[in-house]
Amino acid sequence: MATEQPANRLQGTLYLVPAPLDFACESSCDLTQTLPLGTLQVAARLQHWVCENAKSTRAYLNRIHLVIPLSQPIAEQKLQELPRQVCKKGDHHGQLDARPLLQAALMGHDMGLVSEAGMPAVADPGSSVVRAAHGLGIRVVPLVGPVSLLLALAASGLNGQNFAFVGYLPVGVVERSQRIKALEALAIKTGQTQLFIETPYRNQAMLQSLLQTLRPDTRLAISSGLCLDRASTHSGPVKNWVHNDVVNNSTPAVFAIGP
Amino acid sequence: MATEQPANRLQGTLYLVPAPLDFACESSCDLTQTLPLGTLQVAARLQHWVCENAKSTRAYLNRIHLVIPLSQPIAEQKLQELPRQVCKKGDHHGQLDARPLLQAALMGHDMGLVSEAGMPAVADPGSSVVRAAHGLGIRVVPLVGPVSLLLALAASGLNGQNFAFVGYLPVGVVERSQRIKALEALAIKTGQTQLFIETPYRNQAMLQSLLQTLRPDTRLAISSGLCLDRASTHSGPVKNWVHNDVVNNSTPAVFAIGP
Repeated sequence: MATEQPANRLQGTLYLVPAPLDFACESSCDLTQTLPLGTLQVAARLQHWVCENAKSTRAYLNRIHLVIPLSQPIAEQKLQELPRQVCKKGDHHGQLDARPLLQAALMGHDMGLVSEAGMPAVADPGSSVVRAAHGLGIRVVPLVGPVSLLLALAASGLNGQNFAFVGYLPVGVVERSQRIKALEALAIKTGQTQLFIETPYRNQAMLQSLLQTLRPDTRLAISSGLCLDRASTHSGPVKNWVHNDVVNNSTPAVFAIGP
Repeated sequence: MATEQPANRLQGTLYLVPAPLDFACESSCDLTQTLPLGTLQVAARLQHWVCENAKSTRAYLNRIHLVIPLSQPIAEQKLQELPRQVCKKGDHHGQLDARPLLQAALMGHDMGLVSEAGMPAVADPGSSVVRAAHGLGIRVVPLVGPVSLLLALAASGLNGQNFAFVGYLPVGVVERSQRIKALEALAIKTGQTQLFIETPYRNQAMLQSLLQTLRPDTRLAISSGLCLDRASTHSGPVKNWVHNDVVNNSTPAVFAIGP
């Protein structure tokens, strides 16, 4: 063991539990389509959670129960929500001491960390809890599930040997355009694919900015509604983008640019 | 449709099929632990493949057959290997025209793209095939499965809102040390987590370089054997790394550094 505290196998494990990607979408998918049984089995036996939102975690547990019966009724599960400032600003802008959230693990209970969609702590809150777990010597085990960024990267045809995810771009038109130009310059200079996301209701504005700002030969890829029935990925040089109806303002999308 | 060719639903779909992470490991895992049934169901009905290695693809299909019977015997499946230079140097250093590999899709057959472990086209060959598919107007659908980079990122506790994967570092001691210093400076300046991998037999040499090169306060995270029974993730400031037995030279590992 190389971290701050010696390993202690009397402690519980912190499992990172991915959630399906249909959060806040009008249709929901069959969990077994995008989550391994192994992941659902672990989630079904956990009774202690740290979550982004308790209500959506209960809804997710209800769906799991239809596949694998939960070890304990939802009403008796212990759900702790991450502080609102962590969910809003991310774990890296605050100085949250997340150790109090891990008391159950210190007492020997396995715990789950879950966000509203996809993998906790990846483009989502949770990394402060993971850091605290390592600091306390609690074993951390990530479980397999859908991660929209990586699905989008694979489907983009862009460079997957060197890539970056940079989160959200500025909202202001001028600042957004400047940031797009800077990311394009970096991608062309280094060959590094640049991935980013937008709040769904701004997807079409983002696409317009990209088409107006990027060079004609730069490759743009957009995945919309990943893991839903209507999932789509479009990818090609900007000069060949003749339609712009590939995103809508109610479905999550991932954007990627590269040479 | 915004890419080079109009959509053509008479064409087949190109599915990106993830593989388990136990390739070349002495023990193999239960597929249903890390692959959703939805992914295995699609893979079991495909009969046309583009793969990194035909032999390992057949072995994977054999394992799938034990969970979901294949629609056609393996001996009758059509497997096309990616050219060796693509597998060795990556899709972005050659100028491979992958369109001939997609003839079956043009004729209406669904196809699968698969690498030896994890997600094709992410830290693995395949992006040239995905680009060719977009160019031909073939629908591309990524399926969910294990991606070691993202599992490692989530488990690291490092910044998951801004991160980069930079592939392999140089092998020479001096060049590797310089590259580590440059990545550390970038991570400190921008807050962007830097992920990289190494050929397993150099894992211990990489760890030594990291411990000798990084600043005491820089956080180092290493995941070893992800999705295997002996999976481990260790994460903490360099000054607190007291042991260095967390990687071995026969198990795949992912390294990450950040502030």
